[in-house]
Amino acid sequence: MGFLKTKGEIYKAVEDVDVGPNSNQFYLTANVKAPRMAGFLVKVFAWLLETPIFGSTMLYFLKRNNLIHKLVTFAELQESPLYVPLHYYEGGKEEENQSGTSPREQVRQALEYMVAPIKDLKSFSRWSILDYSTAYNSKVITPTKVMERFLSAVEQSCTPSMQMSFFINFDAHDILTQAAQSTQRYQQGEALSVLDGVPIGIKDEIDCMPYPTTGGTKWMHKVRQCKDDAECVKRLRSCGAILVGKTNMHELGAGTSGINPHHGTTRNPYNIGRIAGGSSSGSAAVVAAGLCPAAIGVDGGGSVRMPAALCGVVGLKPSFGRVSHSGVLPLNWTVGMVGILAGTVEDALLVYAAISGPNSSHHSQTALPKLYFPLLKSPRPMPNIRLAKYGEWFNDCNEEIRVCCSRALEKLRDNYGWETIQVTIPELEVMRLAHYVTIGSECSTSIGPELEKMNKDEVGWDARVAVSVYGSFSSQEYLNAQRIRNRQLQFHKRIFSMADVIVTPTTGVTAYTIGNDTRHTGELDYINGAALVRYQIAGNFLGLPAITVPVGYDKSHLPIGLQFIGKPWDESLLIHIAFSMQALCISQYKKPEVFWDLLAS
Amino acid sequence: MGFLKTKGEIYKAVEDVDVGPNSNQFYLTANVKAPRMAGFLVKVFAWLLETPIFGSTMLYFLKRNNLIHKLVTFAELQESPLYVPLHYYEGGKEEENQSGTSPREQVRQALEYMVAPIKDLKSFSRWSILDYSTAYNSKVITPTKVMERFLSAVEQSCTPSMQMSFFINFDAHDILTQAAQSTQRYQQGEALSVLDGVPIGIKDEIDCMPYPTTGGTKWMHKVRQCKDDAECVKRLRSCGAILVGKTNMHELGAGTSGINPHHGTTRNPYNIGRIAGGSSSGSAAVVAAGLCPAAIGVDGGGSVRMPAALCGVVGLKPSFGRVSHSGVLPLNWTVGMVGILAGTVEDALLVYAAISGPNSSHHSQTALPKLYFPLLKSPRPMPNIRLAKYGEWFNDCNEEIRVCCSRALEKLRDNYGWETIQVTIPELEVMRLAHYVTIGSECSTSIGPELEKMNKDEVGWDARVAVSVYGSFSSQEYLNAQRIRNRQLQFHKRIFSMADVIVTPTTGVTAYTIGNDTRHTGELDYINGAALVRYQIAGNFLGLPAITVPVGYDKSHLPIGLQFIGKPWDESLLIHIAFSMQALCISQYKKPEVFWDLLAS
Repeated sequence: MGFLKTKGEIYKAVEDVDVGPNSNQFYLTANVKAPRMAGFLVKVFAWLLETPIFGSTMLYFLKRNNLIHKLVTFAELQESPLYVPLHYYEGGKEEENQSGTSPREQVRQALEYMVAPIKDLKSFSRWSILDYSTAYNSKVITPTKVMERFLSAVEQSCTPSMQMSFFINFDAHDILTQAAQSTQRYQQGEALSVLDGVPIGIKDEIDCMPYPTTGGTKWMHKVRQCKDDAECVKRLRSCGAILVGKTNMHELGAGTSGINPHHGTTRNPYNIGRIAGGSSSGSAAVVAAGLCPAAIGVDGGGSVRMPAALCGVVGLKPSFGRVSHSGVLPLNWTVGMVGILAGTVEDALLVYAAISGPNSSHHSQTALPKLYFPLLKSPRPMPNIRLAKYGEWFNDCNEEIRVCCSRALEKLRDNYGWETIQVTIPELEVMRLAHYVTIGSECSTSIGPELEKMNKDEVGWDARVAVSVYGSFSSQEYLNAQRIRNRQLQFHKRIFSMADVIVTPTTGVTAYTIGNDTRHTGELDYINGAALVRYQIAGNFLGLPAITVPVGYDKSHLPIGLQFIGKPWDESLLIHIAFSMQALCISQYKKPEVFWDLLAS
Repeated sequence: MGFLKTKGEIYKAVEDVDVGPNSNQFYLTANVKAPRMAGFLVKVFAWLLETPIFGSTMLYFLKRNNLIHKLVTFAELQESPLYVPLHYYEGGKEEENQSGTSPREQVRQALEYMVAPIKDLKSFSRWSILDYSTAYNSKVITPTKVMERFLSAVEQSCTPSMQMSFFINFDAHDILTQAAQSTQRYQQGEALSVLDGVPIGIKDEIDCMPYPTTGGTKWMHKVRQCKDDAECVKRLRSCGAILVGKTNMHELGAGTSGINPHHGTTRNPYNIGRIAGGSSSGSAAVVAAGLCPAAIGVDGGGSVRMPAALCGVVGLKPSFGRVSHSGVLPLNWTVGMVGILAGTVEDALLVYAAISGPNSSHHSQTALPKLYFPLLKSPRPMPNIRLAKYGEWFNDCNEEIRVCCSRALEKLRDNYGWETIQVTIPELEVMRLAHYVTIGSECSTSIGPELEKMNKDEVGWDARVAVSVYGSFSSQEYLNAQRIRNRQLQFHKRIFSMADVIVTPTTGVTAYTIGNDTRHTGELDYINGAALVRYQIAGNFLGLPAITVPVGYDKSHLPIGLQFIGKPWDESLLIHIAFSMQALCISQYKKPEVFWDLLAS
């Protein structure tokens, strides 16, 4: 179809693009050309895309109309490809190679820098990891008792009136066995760490014995066996955490809503008629609902941070390479990262300390910087943190989010004197498309042979559409996407020479309604999807660490998150900033509609 | 065309594949399904491939019939992609970062380890760099006098009876100006290095002032201006070398014969009816013909080593990353490397010392190991070098090459006691296809926008065919090729745990005849092409260093090369081995049909 060929964008040299506040760079809003579809329409669309010649033609026009041809396929770029966003670490020898430090020791070190969580006793707050540990140590309650309450809460969550769809798999016997072992350790004064006996949920994209790993599908576990814990799960287990089952997720991580026709749609604890966000929907919801102080997710395009924001919890996506990917479904190779969902910044820190580090069995190809921990004792140890804000982007969200997030920045300024610097981040929509080409190509390559063997009926309708689009990219599109990655990294390096972090709302919309028409077919809603992922991409495509903190609620009492994006390997500063932000908001935190208090005496 | 879908190969886990001598791995010979084409046939083929729908269909069947679908596209692999073959260097701090060492200092250090080249005075040998330097220092001759002879030789080479087509561009005035400056430096006793006044040719894929960089095309220089010397050229200039012009090459480096319809086909100095090999055809031929002791080429799929072998000179392709790629046409990003063609191993070493190292202006993302130099003083300082030989592969060449190369190995054993170890290198044909998908995808992405703007008539017919095939790959094909790269690197690591180097013939055929039908259309000869590249791919796809040394001649007096492939960063050992091999063969070296003696008194 060369006769219809779009003229490609000619990109200027990076050094000729102004990233300052008065840049003439045009802010291109996501130009999504696709209506919302659910029910029968999704089926028709999937069928058409799978039709041999007509399907390819449709995909050609879809890519063309959504500007992929203009901005990626036929683009003229000077950059060479940057394939993997693993950042070179230039620090001294003594800071490299943390492989010698055990997860337990890392958690102990993190604790040293923590005070008891800041709590406003008049307001709502979730039990933290330290609360569990204190309760167990002081014999107020045992892990066994807590896990009995947990199981009864999960049972309740499955009743027809709730149908929260938190978990894809959980095994009461396995959970109680772990709890009994932990209880015994506390009785003998031999708790493994502050995480001992603490319930933690694991996204069903991560291997965790004795469960299969479904990836949110009906079939993945039939073609790929789970034979061992993933590295991050091993590390949590070595700290005594109770692994309470496999949390629900969007099928193949290929969507942002958490609507799942096979395992049920995870409902938002703040409003059970709303989505929890995805793809780590279950991990966000179990934390919000008080079932776990923390859970593990995987973030390939905001999949930890989006549901965290929509469910009013903290979401941390560490730098690419910080947490081992071993034992995580290889749905992509260069954008996905294990991340943490937690009720508080302190708990995110503790779990981060536990799971960070190279594989215990392999040596990493690249030296990783040492884990270091922020001083949380005072929220104001570092004056003059500079927050970069790109106004047009920041404001490209719904009005209530804009107001709430702007107010949060004012609080940071008023309480700590932290300035906001105006910047321009060029070509954000280009980066979104390049990331889409990348994650799509990698997913399609990775699971292609398995999908070939499947009966199509085993795959959800919205996932079938995604897989059709994912399989449509050329090597030129993939390679140009990697050249855009190189280009964007250079823009971001320039931003980070002016500021310590970039600040954005976490999502452009709050949790939206779960349509009745989505139950069997899932949903295609690229417009809400684009609003959800709007602020996520740099964290994945450039491997930057990012954290979301709840900063308020909209008029429907739905949570709003504020996101900080940091320099490579600078999780410590991010956590410090998030902690400081949380301290200013915690007194306004609201209790979800659905909530269990597992430590109640 | 899913209904015609080929079943993909299911690859075994790497650790389950035997690389020992008794492996049951099947040696798959290149299964090239394409007849030789030249003249009108090439035109028809190019036209058909460029026809919108019929072209795509033809490409589909071409890829299918040549086993790309089975072995790459639909393959089932466990490996994640390895995108860039830059090897992590684990050495100590003191060995890293050679950016402080100047090219002149590196050349001086290399000289310390050299004795005067071994020459058998009864036999033929080319003048070496040390011969030039000695002649200049002893005032036997001046650089100006030598370059006058050079220009007259080049003029002679252009006469209708010869038509050697060595150069695409050379500027007599610029050459004589450089020569005059060098002559003056010698007069003042201020020679910059042993390279001062030594003529060196630069492949027309590398920026060198004051010339345009054509890449062997009629159009590249019209859309991309050459504004500065490439880094390797800067380094040579800083050592006083005389840059004598831009040597001829296969158009876009997209072929192995050096047949070029725009700039003439470089003829082989050993037999002017034969090809010089490519793509660095001119660089090999000028060295063979005595015009330069050394020349620079670029090797993306054997493009330095193949013409070196066919023209009876030494060809060295260093480890990926050892020589800066800055100022080299970006025809690909992950397989091409600047390499050296030289009359002797000693001269290859001196030029290697001059051009190695990171960009002078940028810091490398990765620490490079320090350059170190082999002890050439005795050919036998290291006993028990273990040479890995894969018999079926080694013997997959014409009979005369097989006998000659086997005899060379016997000489190494008889003279130095070096053992040959039998190994099996699995999936070599898979690697060749994966490399082809990679270089094709990268080339097509890199030059796509420029090609779009071209009048098709400006592009040679064989290059048009190449470009059509290059543009046909999907992102899945590219990504699976990178997974195969990861897999092959693991096989090679296992081979290198048993042996110091891998030894192969350099090519499967010697220089073949230039057809009369190739003058205007070029030629498509995928069968001879596959025989030429048969032993090249690991050097490019895995970034391994490799060197070819002339070890004899076939019955038509055409040169035969033997190749050693080394561990990453282990150029020093390779050069030592090549030097030792050369010492055993130099007395049989033959003078080419076309040869100039520029130092003759």
